[in-house]
Amino acid sequence: MATAGIVIIGNEILSGKFADENAPWLVQRLRGLGVDLGRISTIPDTLDDIAGEVRDFSARFDWVFTSGGIGPTHDDLTYLGVATAFGRPLLRHPDIAEMLTRKLGERCNEAALRMAEVPEGAELWWDGGFAYPLVVFRNVVIMPGVPGLLRHKFESVAHRFEGIPVSTDRITTLASEPEIADALTEAAGCWPTVAIGSYPRFEEKPPVVIVTMESRDTKSLAACGEFLRVRVPS
Amino acid sequence: MATAGIVIIGNEILSGKFADENAPWLVQRLRGLGVDLGRISTIPDTLDDIAGEVRDFSARFDWVFTSGGIGPTHDDLTYLGVATAFGRPLLRHPDIAEMLTRKLGERCNEAALRMAEVPEGAELWWDGGFAYPLVVFRNVVIMPGVPGLLRHKFESVAHRFEGIPVSTDRITTLASEPEIADALTEAAGCWPTVAIGSYPRFEEKPPVVIVTMESRDTKSLAACGEFLRVRVPS
Repeated sequence: MATAGIVIIGNEILSGKFADENAPWLVQRLRGLGVDLGRISTIPDTLDDIAGEVRDFSARFDWVFTSGGIGPTHDDLTYLGVATAFGRPLLRHPDIAEMLTRKLGERCNEAALRMAEVPEGAELWWDGGFAYPLVVFRNVVIMPGVPGLLRHKFESVAHRFEGIPVSTDRITTLASEPEIADALTEAAGCWPTVAIGSYPRFEEKPPVVIVTMESRDTKSLAACGEFLRVRVPS
Repeated sequence: MATAGIVIIGNEILSGKFADENAPWLVQRLRGLGVDLGRISTIPDTLDDIAGEVRDFSARFDWVFTSGGIGPTHDDLTYLGVATAFGRPLLRHPDIAEMLTRKLGERCNEAALRMAEVPEGAELWWDGGFAYPLVVFRNVVIMPGVPGLLRHKFESVAHRFEGIPVSTDRITTLASEPEIADALTEAAGCWPTVAIGSYPRFEEKPPVVIVTMESRDTKSLAACGEFLRVRVPS
């Protein structure tokens, strides 16, 4: 079972200039692949924030996906942040520099070549249709912030992250949360491999509570569902 | 100038069962109020995660807004998490217990009364139309996860957070990022109080780059905008 964390890098998200489309998309894709997402962090474009969060996430999770901050402008600090997180320098990678020179021709100036400066020891994954590779340092997959590019890049390497999918069950009830709380607590104790959630929907008429169950242990999931269907009026 | 962090608490967001509506909404509201949002963290319903994140955010920012985990069921651990963050016990608050008893009548069982167990020393803000108060511990404003309730609660106390709004400017250009990178770097150096961002939109035909500027220092913002309009073809 693989775990993952997502680090969304960008002042533009925190200041509300652009809505983040990448975390919601990655949440669904990781779910589909059977990867357990443990945390999402949205942080500013500052070196300390990037380095600190990447170091922390890299130690906590099997995979870390970052989004944003890999372009050629002054606010693109993700490669430097990842390098700093692991005490490595940035090096101009000859393969990326060669690709940029070939692709951009005479428009390939020093600013463009900043995109070739990656943490020393990074792997380049050349999968996918775009010329520019995915840069991966240890377990940190460094992705672009532009939603279309991120999706394309992720899909090209998604098979590398595949895990065991989670099975789910849910009950929608007219009972209130206080009325079913004891049953849920009992079920959570009996089937510790089943994650049980309870979500009131006051905007429904009449209001309902959605009880969700999920597990990779299908036997426990079935037993838990059977128990709760008796105790929670559906 | 006030700063803030948002902590979204809930496995249901990380597992993709429900999309998070609260962070995007709060981003826009805080922006409108002139509060600088420094970080958003989306974490699971576990005591360690909640306590650790709340402690960290409380030290970093003027205000911390949490969302979720304050209902009566086993997965509602936010009050305990906040109490743990500050080394305080949970206490059954007589005013909330009295309100719950009055409101729920004979349906007020022990599970419901869990909602009266708040960190020792918490303030109760009784603003707004709902019976249940906002519970605030130091600078941590503990909000419900249900989007309609969160919005209502936030609006009832929004005036407490008001700061100085940020002014903005933007240029849309057909130039590529490498072509304008030097001008942006120079502007960022000349006007350090202006936050400059650069966002390629490859999905536009033809592709454009949006250059954004923002600051509370309107003179610098105007000078920076004037400089960049000369250097960046719009």
